[in-house]
Amino acid sequence: MNSSFLRTISVKTDSRKQFVDISDFVQAEVTNSGVRSGICLLFLPHTTAGLTLNENWDPCVSSDILLTLDRQTAPPHPEHRHQEGNSPAHIQSSLVGATLFLIIEDGQILLGPWQGIFLTEFDGPRERHVTIKIMAG
Amino acid sequence: MNSSFLRTISVKTDSRKQFVDISDFVQAEVTNSGVRSGICLLFLPHTTAGLTLNENWDPCVSSDILLTLDRQTAPPHPEHRHQEGNSPAHIQSSLVGATLFLIIEDGQILLGPWQGIFLTEFDGPRERHVTIKIMAG
Amino acid sequence: MNSSFLRTISVKTDSRKQFVDISDFVQAEVTNSGVRSGICLLFLPHTTAGLTLNENWDPCVSSDILLTLDRQTAPPHPEHRHQEGNSPAHIQSSLVGATLFLIIEDGQILLGPWQGIFLTEFDGPRERHVTIKIMAG
Repeated sequence: MNSSFLRTISVKTDSRKQFVDISDFVQAEVTNSGVRSGICLLFLPHTTAGLTLNENWDPCVSSDILLTLDRQTAPPHPEHRHQEGNSPAHIQSSLVGATLFLIIEDGQILLGPWQGIFLTEFDGPRERHVTIKIMAG
Repeated sequence: MNSSFLRTISVKTDSRKQFVDISDFVQAEVTNSGVRSGICLLFLPHTTAGLTLNENWDPCVSSDILLTLDRQTAPPHPEHRHQEGNSPAHIQSSLVGATLFLIIEDGQILLGPWQGIFLTEFDGPRERHVTIKIMAG
Repeated sequence: MNSSFLRTISVKTDSRKQFVDISDFVQAEVTNSGVRSGICLLFLPHTTAGLTLNENWDPCVSSDILLTLDRQTAPPHPEHRHQEGNSPAHIQSSLVGATLFLIIEDGQILLGPWQGIFLTEFDGPRERHVTIKIMAG
């Protein structure tokens, strides 16, 4: 076991707006790392997607979140000047955040009973990358 | 002093929407840990609450934040499909975030002069848990 | 090289609402620290500003984000009770967040090709401080 472990995983999204549950992929890397106690840091090198924790039991929760985010921040406002037309996705990325940390104990990521780790796609479909750093401690 | 320290504290909320200042409880665990320099990681195993830093001097700040969050994301929209009816609380949790880290120096959490650490209840009253991991470094 | 490194940098904002790209300042401190692999933790001791990752190529992205945030959360609502009148800035601070972590590999902060680190001013102009902690690991 090294004290640090770095991997990048790919996640293919297939809709314009989507929550993708990546909990199992992240836990698999924690297991690969051999770290029993420490932290797991997730980072997206993207500016129109996010990372968040939320309910993974009822898929309606994530669709309701996306619906409300779009009602608040989309469509692009007439005064928006970014020519690509995806300013709402950039806004949603900064609101949800492109980083997330997790606590590792006994080799497992701590999560609540109905809680999952989601990549939130706001401007898909695309191939996204998630960088995962695992530190013992 | 170990290099890592993990505790869970309970926080009882008594309203549907509420900011609870947990700064003193978090500092107490940092003091218990004996860590003089390091980081303090807070995690909520819940999906309808959050963790945030904001002003702790004028309590009107937190009530104004809750009022505006509700004006933007509540009540549930007619198209919401999550049957529990608390989708706004899930949305607010992802906007504010269920994790928060703090820097420890000289045994103290770094905070601005009017800054406190808040658990933000969006679907109370409930008993909430905050997991606190403290790492030296 | 120590295992921990703490610095505070000053950032002068010159508008009421502004994104300031601080990527180069943060990278300079990472270089100063001598840390090749680790994490960089940013913290604002302020409650009316934020820290976020977003596109740094087209400046219209950040102005569009500020415009939309203001349309959603400003001006102060008649029911707001905080007398300073800057409740929207406090709300925006909790939505964007006053902390941000970054991953360091080969002495460089990991960032996507069009991604920058921004201090987001919501109640300027002011002199702001960013505390930067760098840990090897």
